[in-house]
Amino acid sequence: MNAGALPRLAVTAGEPAGIGPELLIRLAATSLAANFVAITDRALLERAAKRCGTTIELIDDDGSAITERRPGTLRVLHVPLAALEQPGRPDPANARHVLTTLAEAADGCMSGRYQAIVTAPLQKSSINDSGIRFSGHTEFFAERSRSDVVMMLASPELRVALATTHLPLSAVPAAITAEALTRTLRIVHAELRDKFGYAEPRIAVLGLNPHAGEDGHLGREEIDVMIPALDALRSAGLQLIGPLPADTAFVPAQRERYDAVVAMYHDQALPVLKSEAFDRTVNLTLGLPFIRTSVDHGTALDLAGSGRADPSSLIAAARMALELVARRNASVQRA
Amino acid sequence: MNAGALPRLAVTAGEPAGIGPELLIRLAATSLAANFVAITDRALLERAAKRCGTTIELIDDDGSAITERRPGTLRVLHVPLAALEQPGRPDPANARHVLTTLAEAADGCMSGRYQAIVTAPLQKSSINDSGIRFSGHTEFFAERSRSDVVMMLASPELRVALATTHLPLSAVPAAITAEALTRTLRIVHAELRDKFGYAEPRIAVLGLNPHAGEDGHLGREEIDVMIPALDALRSAGLQLIGPLPADTAFVPAQRERYDAVVAMYHDQALPVLKSEAFDRTVNLTLGLPFIRTSVDHGTALDLAGSGRADPSSLIAAARMALELVARRNASVQRA
Repeated sequence: MNAGALPRLAVTAGEPAGIGPELLIRLAATSLAANFVAITDRALLERAAKRCGTTIELIDDDGSAITERRPGTLRVLHVPLAALEQPGRPDPANARHVLTTLAEAADGCMSGRYQAIVTAPLQKSSINDSGIRFSGHTEFFAERSRSDVVMMLASPELRVALATTHLPLSAVPAAITAEALTRTLRIVHAELRDKFGYAEPRIAVLGLNPHAGEDGHLGREEIDVMIPALDALRSAGLQLIGPLPADTAFVPAQRERYDAVVAMYHDQALPVLKSEAFDRTVNLTLGLPFIRTSVDHGTALDLAGSGRADPSSLIAAARMALELVARRNASVQRA
Repeated sequence: MNAGALPRLAVTAGEPAGIGPELLIRLAATSLAANFVAITDRALLERAAKRCGTTIELIDDDGSAITERRPGTLRVLHVPLAALEQPGRPDPANARHVLTTLAEAADGCMSGRYQAIVTAPLQKSSINDSGIRFSGHTEFFAERSRSDVVMMLASPELRVALATTHLPLSAVPAAITAEALTRTLRIVHAELRDKFGYAEPRIAVLGLNPHAGEDGHLGREEIDVMIPALDALRSAGLQLIGPLPADTAFVPAQRERYDAVVAMYHDQALPVLKSEAFDRTVNLTLGLPFIRTSVDHGTALDLAGSGRADPSSLIAAARMALELVARRNASVQRA
C-alpha cells in the first residue's frame, strides 16, 4: 500500500431486498477514512440512495489508491442483479448474484486488492430456496479460503468467541470435544496475537455447566474434557483462565484478567454482549487469511426500503476492520 | 403490626465459619429502618463484631415492636452453636444449629412473628458431611412450607426467574416440560402480582435454543413444548412475551416490554444480571407463603474472620425484603 493511501475495504451489500444496500449508503455518508469499494449492483445503490432520501456519488472502481474520500462518495465494483429487487421480498433469482459478490470480496482479499471485507446481512433462506446449499457468510469464507474459523462477537469493551455457534442446545454438550476446543482456542490465541496485536493474549474459557460444574456436582464435562484440554494448551504456552463460571465471568474485576472470552455456546455470552452494546457489536471471523467483519443483525425485511434502518452496526464493523488493518500495517512496519 | 412499628425481619447467619456472622454485623451498622432479629448464637455475633473491628449492642428479642433502631444495635434470638466456630473451617457439628435457625425463621414467618426472612450464605457440603440430606435454603423453605417454588434473581433494573436452576447443561432440555414451564410461569405471574404489586404482570420467556429455535432450524423445543404451553397460559389470561431469543432479550428496547424474564437455565440470563449489577443482585424465592430474600454469593471461606467481606449483597437483600413488606402492607391497607 502506498504511504498515505486509504485502506481499500470491500463492502458487500448482502441481500438486495434487505436493508443492506441502504446501510451502504449510510456508511458512505460517514467521514470514515477508508476507500470503501461496494461490491454490488450500481443501480441498486442508486435506488437505495433514493429510498434513503439522499444522493450518492458512485465512482467505478479502477483499483487505484486514493488518499481521501469525500462523504457521500463510494467506489463500486459493479456486479449486476439478475432480477430487480423488491424491498422486503427476497428473490432466489438473485442468490447467485449475492454469492458472486462474496467470492469477489474473498478472492480480492486473498490476492491483495482489498485489505479487509465488511459484510451487510444476507438472507440465508433465499439462497437455499434457489437450490444452493449455503449456511452463511462465515462458512462460505472458510470454505473459499480453506480455513478453520471461529466466530467472534466484539464490542469496544468485550470480545467473545464461540466454541459452538448455531446448534440446538441439546447438541451442545457433545460438540464440546477436546479436539474442537483445542482448535478453537488455538485459533483465538493466534488471532489475538496476529490481528489484535497482543504479544501474550489472555483468554478466559467459560465452563459448559453452571458454576463450571462445581467440582463435578453440576456436570462432568469440565473435569473429563475441558480441564485436560486447557492444561495441554497451557503446557504449550497459551495463557488460559478457567473453566470459569459464566455467571460471574463478566463482572468488572474479572474482565481485567482477560483479553477475550471463549464461551461454550451462543446464549451463554451473547446476551451479555448485546445487552450492554447492542448497536456497537460486530461479528468477526477469526482464522481466515484476511480480515472480515460484519454487522451483527439480519436483513430486517420489514424495514427494507424505508430508509430508516439503523446503520450503527455496519459503521461499527467498518471501524473495527479499519482498526485491525491499522494494527496489521503497524506490525508489518515493525517487522 | 402496630402503626409506626418497624418491620420485623428474621436474619439468619448461615454457616458460622463463613462470612455470614460478619455480614450481619455490617447490616446492623446500617441505618436501614428495620427491626432485624438475628437468629443465631449471641456470642458468635460478639466475636464477629470483634473480627470486624467494631462493637455491636445485642438485645435479646422479646418479640416486642420497636419504632426505631439505632445503627449498631441488633435484636437476637439466641440459638446456641454446638462447636466453637473456626473461621474458614466449617464444622459439620454445627449443621444442626444452622438448620434450627432456618426452621425458626420459616416457622416464625408462617406464624406471623416475622414479616420476612433474609438469609446469609451457608455451606451445603458441611451440612451434607454431617449426614443430613440437604440441597439448599430454597429447597428447605419449600419443603417446610409445602410450597412449589421458583428461584428469582433481581437487581433494581432486572428480574430473572429460572425454569431450571442447578442442573448440568445436558439435563436442561429434558427438564423443560410443558408441566414444569406452566408451573413456573404461574408462580412467577402470581408473585409479581401478589408480592410485587403488578396488576397485570408482563413476563418475557426466553427460548431454550439460540434464536429461540429459529422456526425449528435450531431446535424443536420451542415449537413442540414451549409455544403450546405459553398459548394455553395466554388463554388463561397471563401476559407472556416470547419465546424470545435470549441474545437480544435484554437490550433496552426489549426491557421496556416486561416486568420479569423467565430464563430456561442458569447461564442464559445470570451472566447479564451479574455483569451489570454484581453487588446489587438479590436472590428471592417465589412461591413461598412468606417473603424470603438472600445474598447472591457463597460463604467466602477465604475471607471469613478477616472482617473484610463486602456486605453489599446482604444489604441489598434486606432492602428488597423491606420493599416487598412495604408493598404488601400497602396492598393489605387498600384491601
